[in-house]
Amino acid sequence: MDEVVNVHRHVLEHNDATAKQNRADFDEAGVRVVNLMSAPGAGKTSLLERALPMLAGVRVGVLEGDVQSSLDADRMRALDVPVSLVNTDVTFAGECHLDAAMVRSGLVDLPLADLDLLVVENVGNLVCPAEFTIGEHRRAMVFSVTEGEEKPLKYPLMFRTCDLVVVNKMDLLPHLDFDLDLFLDNLDAVHPDVPHQLLSARTGEGVRCFAAWLSETAGA
Amino acid sequence: MDEVVNVHRHVLEHNDATAKQNRADFDEAGVRVVNLMSAPGAGKTSLLERALPMLAGVRVGVLEGDVQSSLDADRMRALDVPVSLVNTDVTFAGECHLDAAMVRSGLVDLPLADLDLLVVENVGNLVCPAEFTIGEHRRAMVFSVTEGEEKPLKYPLMFRTCDLVVVNKMDLLPHLDFDLDLFLDNLDAVHPDVPHQLLSARTGEGVRCFAAWLSETAGA
Repeated sequence: MDEVVNVHRHVLEHNDATAKQNRADFDEAGVRVVNLMSAPGAGKTSLLERALPMLAGVRVGVLEGDVQSSLDADRMRALDVPVSLVNTDVTFAGECHLDAAMVRSGLVDLPLADLDLLVVENVGNLVCPAEFTIGEHRRAMVFSVTEGEEKPLKYPLMFRTCDLVVVNKMDLLPHLDFDLDLFLDNLDAVHPDVPHQLLSARTGEGVRCFAAWLSETAGA
Repeated sequence: MDEVVNVHRHVLEHNDATAKQNRADFDEAGVRVVNLMSAPGAGKTSLLERALPMLAGVRVGVLEGDVQSSLDADRMRALDVPVSLVNTDVTFAGECHLDAAMVRSGLVDLPLADLDLLVVENVGNLVCPAEFTIGEHRRAMVFSVTEGEEKPLKYPLMFRTCDLVVVNKMDLLPHLDFDLDLFLDNLDAVHPDVPHQLLSARTGEGVRCFAAWLSETAGA
């Protein structure tokens, strides 16, 4: 196991150095970067489809991370914003997350200096994306109420390291046994006082609040 | 990137050797092993809570894989079956999947020779668990209709390598925009003719079919 742990540490140290380069490039270009993470199917893409058109006066771009397919990238391109797609299965061994080098490889397709905000939609995965900084200024995660109240306790790192928790699919609450208070207690146990927003990307209810958070992040 | 790919290959080769040892031990003990995988919150634990008590005459044990916490293991112990818990954050660098060595470390807590069936509940993750054989005889995955129709195209490996796809949370279908036919078409595109079962672990509808599949796997 020592071998595994050492490889792991080496990978993370190498990542940190590249993340610093990314951050320097972001700051030089004057673009603020959000790392958007979640489990698969929690609704990151649907949320962005709703929220990005609400961003008045913010020049936004999207970097899409997926193991395979251009499905999400195509949905973002339909919003008429600059989009860069990184498929991890092509050159990155099918990795289950974006790391700083993968993000860096995707930056060449984006007009960084012409953007105020870059949203990086990470690979759908509650574990590894949280381990890798990509040089972002802020992290947000989308949690779906269909995933169960105990997720902050089982996958604490992502909940603990993000600056905003978006609680999505609130329209399904009447049809679930999900206990919202218990979830918020569990969230508080692993990350006290982290801001959260209750919304539904499907109905649009509450999405304006997330758009406002993006605007504020962009400094608009 | 070559370095990453080489480390990756080395890890997988090492894993295959340990998986073979596991398989030999399973066969010697006369126990059949199911590797149960899914995204976080798709309902693996809830499904087992419903299905395991339906297994007449099958001596079943469970190996629980989680990054952190004993929440799922406690739910399985409440069923009065032998349970072994592997937390990946303790000795395995917070890995996002079970590999053959982690499973092997959990086998010491199980009375293998007294079991007909061992269900390994993998870490909730649609990507990496599918890369690592653990010596299992069969793979099943749980997919939740809340995750979206396109998941087989975005995360093909797990859908492609499993012997059964359980489509869970069917009770939520009237409240979603989920197109079941489109999902089944996407599934067929990545894994033609893989069996699937439509059910709801919450209401219990259709779970008997999954229990029958487990019984058949156990050779009962």
